[in-house]
Amino acid sequence: MKKIGVGILGLGTVGGGTYKILTENHNNIVCKENLDIQVIKVLERSVERALQKGVPESKVAASIDEITANNDIDIVVEVIGGIEPAKTFISKCLMSGKSVVTANKELISKHWTELEEIAKKHNCGLYFEASCLGGVPIIRSLVEGLQANNITELAGIFNGTTNYILTKMSEDNMSYTDCLAEAQNLGYAEADPTSDVEGFDTMYKLSILSTLAFGKRIPLDKIYREGITRITKSDIESGKELGYTIKLLAIGKMYNNSLEVRVHPAFVPDEHPLATVRGSFNAIHLVGNYVGEIMLYGKGAGDLPTGSAIVSDIIYCAHISEPRYVRFDCSVNETSLVTDFKSKYYMLINCVDKPGVLSQTTAVLGKHEVSIESIIQKGKHKEFARVVFLTHETSELSMMNAIEELKKLNVVDSVESVIRVLD
Amino acid sequence: MKKIGVGILGLGTVGGGTYKILTENHNNIVCKENLDIQVIKVLERSVERALQKGVPESKVAASIDEITANNDIDIVVEVIGGIEPAKTFISKCLMSGKSVVTANKELISKHWTELEEIAKKHNCGLYFEASCLGGVPIIRSLVEGLQANNITELAGIFNGTTNYILTKMSEDNMSYTDCLAEAQNLGYAEADPTSDVEGFDTMYKLSILSTLAFGKRIPLDKIYREGITRITKSDIESGKELGYTIKLLAIGKMYNNSLEVRVHPAFVPDEHPLATVRGSFNAIHLVGNYVGEIMLYGKGAGDLPTGSAIVSDIIYCAHISEPRYVRFDCSVNETSLVTDFKSKYYMLINCVDKPGVLSQTTAVLGKHEVSIESIIQKGKHKEFARVVFLTHETSELSMMNAIEELKKLNVVDSVESVIRVLD
Repeated sequence: MKKIGVGILGLGTVGGGTYKILTENHNNIVCKENLDIQVIKVLERSVERALQKGVPESKVAASIDEITANNDIDIVVEVIGGIEPAKTFISKCLMSGKSVVTANKELISKHWTELEEIAKKHNCGLYFEASCLGGVPIIRSLVEGLQANNITELAGIFNGTTNYILTKMSEDNMSYTDCLAEAQNLGYAEADPTSDVEGFDTMYKLSILSTLAFGKRIPLDKIYREGITRITKSDIESGKELGYTIKLLAIGKMYNNSLEVRVHPAFVPDEHPLATVRGSFNAIHLVGNYVGEIMLYGKGAGDLPTGSAIVSDIIYCAHISEPRYVRFDCSVNETSLVTDFKSKYYMLINCVDKPGVLSQTTAVLGKHEVSIESIIQKGKHKEFARVVFLTHETSELSMMNAIEELKKLNVVDSVESVIRVLD
Repeated sequence: MKKIGVGILGLGTVGGGTYKILTENHNNIVCKENLDIQVIKVLERSVERALQKGVPESKVAASIDEITANNDIDIVVEVIGGIEPAKTFISKCLMSGKSVVTANKELISKHWTELEEIAKKHNCGLYFEASCLGGVPIIRSLVEGLQANNITELAGIFNGTTNYILTKMSEDNMSYTDCLAEAQNLGYAEADPTSDVEGFDTMYKLSILSTLAFGKRIPLDKIYREGITRITKSDIESGKELGYTIKLLAIGKMYNNSLEVRVHPAFVPDEHPLATVRGSFNAIHLVGNYVGEIMLYGKGAGDLPTGSAIVSDIIYCAHISEPRYVRFDCSVNETSLVTDFKSKYYMLINCVDKPGVLSQTTAVLGKHEVSIESIIQKGKHKEFARVVFLTHETSELSMMNAIEELKKLNVVDSVESVIRVLD
C-alpha cells in the first residue's frame, strides 16, 4: 500500500475539517483507495487551537521550514487563505518537491501561472478543487469528465453568503441590511462582508473556472463585477411578479473566438435550473458543444464540504504518477474580451404621470436601439408614476447610454433600478 | 505528444457520435490534452453505414480479430450494446492487451466483476462513464471527486424516455399510452419500450452507481423494480394538488451496514431539486457524510452526450500510466440488503360513501402500524367515494399487508393507486 504524508498549513475552519476527514475516515480511504494517508505536521501558531482540533502537540510545526524539510511529507495542504504568507509558503513547498493542494481562490486566480511554473520546474502537482464551489467536484468534472467538449457557456451561483441573503430577502421579505446582519450573526457572513457582497469571491472563482472551461486565462481586472448591495425589496417583489428570482451570477461565454466574463446580480427565470438554488447552496450550469446542458449543485463552503474537496485532491494527487497541469492559451489563436456584452434588461423608472411621457422615454430607448419587450405601470410613488421596462437582448453600452440620457429628461425623476435578465 | 489509436465496435447512434467527436474535435484535444487520438479501425458489418457516418472504407474492419490483432489500437470502444457479442468482443480486446471503454450498462451491471478480472489479468483498463447518465460525469465525480466521503444516500432520474413521458403526462395532461406513442414517434422511445418503461434500464444504472457510491456490489436480482406503466392521469393530478411531481426514481441508501436499492415511480415534493428535472434530462442527488447534498444534472442519452462521456474515458485512459480499478466489497464487513424498506405512501381507495367507512379503513391501517399523515376526500366516482391517504414513514411490508386487508373489506371497492413519496 502506498503511504502518503500530508502537511497542513493553517488550522482554521477548512484546515480543521481536512484534519477531521483524514483522521476519521482514514481506514475507509485505506480500503477504498489502497492509500495510507497520514497527517505528519500541521503548521499552526497556536498549540492550544491545534489541541482543540484534536491535533497532538507532537504534530504541530512552528515554521514552514519544518514542513519543507520533512521528508515524510509528500503533499502540503494550504488553507491559510489570502495572498501572503500563503504564496511564499506554497512556493517553498513546491520548490522542496512537495505537491500542493489549496483552497485559496484569491491566490490561484491572481498567481496561478506563476505558481504552476514553479510546480512544473520541480515536477510537483498544484491542485485546487476546493477553491471553487466547496465540495462540488466542478474542477474534476471539467478536467477529467468534460474534456471532449468545447464549453461555450457557463453561469453559476458561486457564493453561498450572497445567495443566502438573496434567498432570505426573497422568501422572508426582509431588507438587504437585515439579512446581512442575520447572516453575520449566524456566521455565514464575515464581519467585513466586502469580498462576498461586492462579488470579489465570485469573481475569483469565475476567473479560475473560465480558464478551465474555455482554455483561456482571463485577467481578473477584465472581469466585470457588480455586487448585491443595491438590491432592494422592491426589486425582489418586481422580479416575483414577472416570474424571476434574483441571483448573484457569474457568467462566462465563448463565441467567435471572444470571451465574455462578468459577475452581477441578475433576474433568473423561475423555470431555469439556477432559480431553484436556495440558501447557501452553489451551482454551476454549463453548456458544452457535445454534452449539451449540465448542472452541478452542492454546498459551496464549510469545513467538511471544502475538506471533502481537499481530501479528494490529496487522493487524486497520490494516485497519479506524473503531476497533471491544465493546458490553456493554446486552443484559440486570437481571443479578445467582450466588454460590450449583450443582455436583456429590467429597468424601473420614476417619471412624471402625464400624457407624452412614455413617448419621450421610449424615443430615447429607440434612439439607442434598445428594443422593448414590455412596459408595466407599477402604480405611483409620491407624485411619480413607477414604470418597468423589459427589453429584448441589447448591448450593455447602448443600455447604459440610454439610461444616462433618460436621467436627463425632465419627465424622469430617477432610474431607480436596472437589473440584467438571464436569457 | 502521445499517440493513441482507437478501435470502435459498432457504428450505431453512440458509435457515430463518438467518431464525430474524435474527428471533429481532434485538433482541440491535441491542444488541450497533448494527445493525438486517431480512430484506426471501426468494426461495422455495413460498409455503406460506415460511409454514411463519414468513416472511410479503409478503416472498416470485418471481424473482431482485425481489431485485436492491430497493434496500432490501444483503446477499444464498445458501443454494440446487449450481452453478446459485446461480452466476447470486450473479453478478446482485454486479452489482447487493449483497454476498453464501453457505454454498455446491461453488460457492466451483469458481468462487471468477471470483465474486470480479465482486465486486471492483462493490465488493461475497463471504463464505463458513458453507461450511466450519458454525458453527466457522475462516475468520474464518484471515483475522482467525492472519494473522501462515505455516500449515504442517492436518488436519481436515470432514464430520459420515462422522464419525458411523465413530464409530458404532467404538463400536457396526456395519457400514458398517448405519451408513449409520441415518444416512439419522436425516436425517444424504442419500438419495444420494455427496458425503459419497466425500469430495467434504470435498474442497470442503479446497480453500477450504487456499487461505486457504497463500495458494495448489489446483485441485479436484489434490486426492487417497478415501472411506470400503471401511472394514470389521475395520479398525476392528485400529485399536483398535493405539491408533488411524479418521477421514476432510482434510490440507494446505506445505513447500519445495510443497503437499500430500489427503482419505482415516486411522488417527489415540488421543492426537491429532482422535481425540476424535466423532459429527457437525467439527474442524480447524492448525500455524502462530508460533502452533504450534491446534485448532477444533464442529458442522459443521445449520440453526442454519450459520445462526450466515451471520449472523456478515452482521454482519461490515455493519460494514466496504470489502469485504475474501483475497489469495492472491502469497506464493510457485513452488509445485508434491506428488502422491507421504509417510505411514505400515497394511497387512493374507492370506498362506499357511508358513515363508519373511515373508521374501518383506518383501523386496518392502525393494526398494521401504518400511521396516517392526512386523509383527503376527492369527490365521488360512480357510487364510490374516492379517498386519498398520505402516510407517515412506514415499512413497505406493513403497507402491503394493510393494502391486502383493505381490499378484503366490504366497504372498499378498490385500492386504485399506491405511490411511494420521496421524503
